[in-house]
Amino acid sequence: MRPQNHPFQLPNPSQTPIAKQPKSPVMAHEMQPKLNVQIADQLSKIILKTPKGTRDYGPEQMALRLAVLDKIVAVFKKHGAETLDTPVFERKEVLTGKYGEDSKLIYDLKDQGGEILALRYDLTVPFARYLAMGKISSIKRYHVAKVYRRDNPSATRARYREFYQCDFDIAGQYDPMIPDAECIRVISEALRSLDVGPYTIKLNHRSLLDGIFAACGVPSDKFRAVCSAVDKLDKNSWSEVRREMIEEKGLNEANADKIGTYVSLFGGTELISKLRQDDELMKHESAVKGLESVELLFKYCHILRVTDEIIFDLSLARGLDYYTGVIFEATLTGDDVGVGSVAGGGRYDNLVGMFDSKNKSIPCVGLSLGVERIFNVLETKLSERGVKTRTTEVEVFVATAQKNLHEERMKLLSVLWDADVKAEQFYKRNVKLLAQLQYCEESGIPLVVIIGEGELARGEVTLRDVASRAEVSIPRASLIQEIRKRLAS
Amino acid sequence: MRPQNHPFQLPNPSQTPIAKQPKSPVMAHEMQPKLNVQIADQLSKIILKTPKGTRDYGPEQMALRLAVLDKIVAVFKKHGAETLDTPVFERKEVLTGKYGEDSKLIYDLKDQGGEILALRYDLTVPFARYLAMGKISSIKRYHVAKVYRRDNPSATRARYREFYQCDFDIAGQYDPMIPDAECIRVISEALRSLDVGPYTIKLNHRSLLDGIFAACGVPSDKFRAVCSAVDKLDKNSWSEVRREMIEEKGLNEANADKIGTYVSLFGGTELISKLRQDDELMKHESAVKGLESVELLFKYCHILRVTDEIIFDLSLARGLDYYTGVIFEATLTGDDVGVGSVAGGGRYDNLVGMFDSKNKSIPCVGLSLGVERIFNVLETKLSERGVKTRTTEVEVFVATAQKNLHEERMKLLSVLWDADVKAEQFYKRNVKLLAQLQYCEESGIPLVVIIGEGELARGEVTLRDVASRAEVSIPRASLIQEIRKRLAS
Repeated sequence: MRPQNHPFQLPNPSQTPIAKQPKSPVMAHEMQPKLNVQIADQLSKIILKTPKGTRDYGPEQMALRLAVLDKIVAVFKKHGAETLDTPVFERKEVLTGKYGEDSKLIYDLKDQGGEILALRYDLTVPFARYLAMGKISSIKRYHVAKVYRRDNPSATRARYREFYQCDFDIAGQYDPMIPDAECIRVISEALRSLDVGPYTIKLNHRSLLDGIFAACGVPSDKFRAVCSAVDKLDKNSWSEVRREMIEEKGLNEANADKIGTYVSLFGGTELISKLRQDDELMKHESAVKGLESVELLFKYCHILRVTDEIIFDLSLARGLDYYTGVIFEATLTGDDVGVGSVAGGGRYDNLVGMFDSKNKSIPCVGLSLGVERIFNVLETKLSERGVKTRTTEVEVFVATAQKNLHEERMKLLSVLWDADVKAEQFYKRNVKLLAQLQYCEESGIPLVVIIGEGELARGEVTLRDVASRAEVSIPRASLIQEIRKRLAS
Repeated sequence: MRPQNHPFQLPNPSQTPIAKQPKSPVMAHEMQPKLNVQIADQLSKIILKTPKGTRDYGPEQMALRLAVLDKIVAVFKKHGAETLDTPVFERKEVLTGKYGEDSKLIYDLKDQGGEILALRYDLTVPFARYLAMGKISSIKRYHVAKVYRRDNPSATRARYREFYQCDFDIAGQYDPMIPDAECIRVISEALRSLDVGPYTIKLNHRSLLDGIFAACGVPSDKFRAVCSAVDKLDKNSWSEVRREMIEEKGLNEANADKIGTYVSLFGGTELISKLRQDDELMKHESAVKGLESVELLFKYCHILRVTDEIIFDLSLARGLDYYTGVIFEATLTGDDVGVGSVAGGGRYDNLVGMFDSKNKSIPCVGLSLGVERIFNVLETKLSERGVKTRTTEVEVFVATAQKNLHEERMKLLSVLWDADVKAEQFYKRNVKLLAQLQYCEESGIPLVVIIGEGELARGEVTLRDVASRAEVSIPRASLIQEIRKRLAS
């Protein structure tokens, strides 16, 4: 009979903390394969890598990602959103003319006969196509999925060619700024729930920008091009943006400088009052309209208890062509993060109409959380704290103390699985008990059921608590009950 | 002051059951837009449809799909699997030479400069590429994601060009049939948990098939081609398959007929004994080996309590090139389902080696659940039973009984959201109370908080139980507590 206290020497858990990576000879594997390992296959000469700008997500990365996505979806559900899904590719014409200068980044599929297709660039245009196709006049939906952009990848800025977007949109003919303010609240709730540190949500309005451009002498057919230049202020300096406006967009220097004085302004509601006193600006109807909207949005945000984190920022432009009203963007403001925006969105009242045969449009407002950057921030935080993420949910490991008992392990596993206990074993017939116990300590499995010939003869099992290493004998008949009791506590 | 019992006439809930679709003028939308509605845009002439063989999933479809995927993932987790994810596209050379005749169905991306890419055809080849690239020698992983095949779509057979696969695979050098048997158990558990009715899991072995082909006089360089013909027996008649073997694969009639006698055999362990007495067959080492494996697999399946649902079926061949050992496939056997296989898989010991520079291979076995067919079966069942799926999780609707109280609604919503209550309102300033209450009944929201001027003056709200229509006044201070109490019960 096997003694209750195992004779082999395991290191004391208080002295050696759980290893970062399971090292068992049987189950061990590298958790995080190196990105883009290039191995020239001697036979087939295959370069072994993921496509440029993409990567695999290993088990630890996935565990974090799924936890983050779960939290975001919980916020979307709290606000009553349904979910829907669209194909990863669209007919190319659906995407054409929606993204302005960025259209060159769309991934096209090869013409293999039949329709001309392209991968989705965002989740917004497919959503608008869905609304138009189904004649849907109102919906509040979320969509978590990957989108594709042939951008220049930069792992440090978490800029990839394939990345998750988490979108929440409200479509329907509603009263001004009520759904818009809820979108700001959703961004704020999501970022708070993710514990990413302090953040700011910048607000602006496309109509106000148009009014500013008009007041600065920009001809209306150049609004979008100038807007696209202003959008680069989060990455480039004013002098670079000014140069683009003059050399590429054809503005004169005086007009460009006038724009420069506006887009350097930011603040709270006092900035609204200040702009109201700008007679030159207030001559332009779109500026008046935009400013009224921003004022109402601020009011509603305060009612929805989103106050300190919002800022009225005239430099916010957003790159995409389809925005027509309020625009917003969230950035992390902690000392240690330089990751750029983590959420953005705005109102796009005309996009659905671009798909409708009678040009009937559905007003929409929505947001998109850029979770890749959030993943990066959280991964850094976790690794700094030395936190190890469990990648499985195994509750019980079934081990044997002698050889040739693998069929007994399998019998016991069946009993556990039938009782909905998450359980596993090693897939080898004979493994040293020490290796089995070490694996449990390394991978954070809380309980081990050990069977040896003695236990079998007595109709018992040994139940081991992995953390304390305490073992007790219990009759097989009460095993499930005991496991449930221990897991509940 | 507004009376506690509303004067408007709502239909009695016992007489009119909750409508199938919300019809509120504000929130209503079509839940299931028609597939491929073609609308010629008068301006841009855009044909408004999803690409051939793909569709959108609306909110009701998504609710069912997410519930099904959750159940499947729960089974995978019960067996201790980690999850990982790979890009939706791979370098084309990764996919080349892995799928035999089906390679023509791969979606290629357009050459836009840079790498030549193609959409993933399954989750198995990317998994093997991942293992080789990361030098991972053992892992048990699941992967739920969409794959892409330029197949001829058939909605009735639930055959699409974009569809979900749910894969579970065990990679590593283990003892024979222990992980293989667990895969069979996982399929059985998953199908049982989904409540799709009776099912059968067919088992066979590629080595045994090779032995049979050899015994029937097929030259070894034609094994894969003949195997691919046999694979069509689930869709085509024997005479069609026979014709293909003779006319396309170049077998003579006598050999084809000999194969026909074998592939018509199916049964339990008694078939193993019967084949053992076939001296001609037993001359072939691969047949002996295959039969031994099947015998051991049956034994382990019985230990794992998978018994009545498994069947040894010599007609099972599986189309893909990469299988090397046990193969299996599950089909639903209820009267009303003709959906073909709902799960399949097998052992593929050489696939990882195809990516390794030193040809080092990692033995693997795994399964894939074809959930599109399962979705179809469950959707039919639900619609027959008239079951309506809720598409949101909203717990409380905030309504107003008079005009110009929208800011009060928003204040109350903030309180609810801060307390993690799932809550929503209409986004219009003024809506008739009747419309608000009807929306709640139609969409299954359990509670309504109503505020009117009287309630505001008294510091109270009216809490309405949607099902019973009973209303009570409660102080605002105890609202959250009361909501939690009611939702818990």
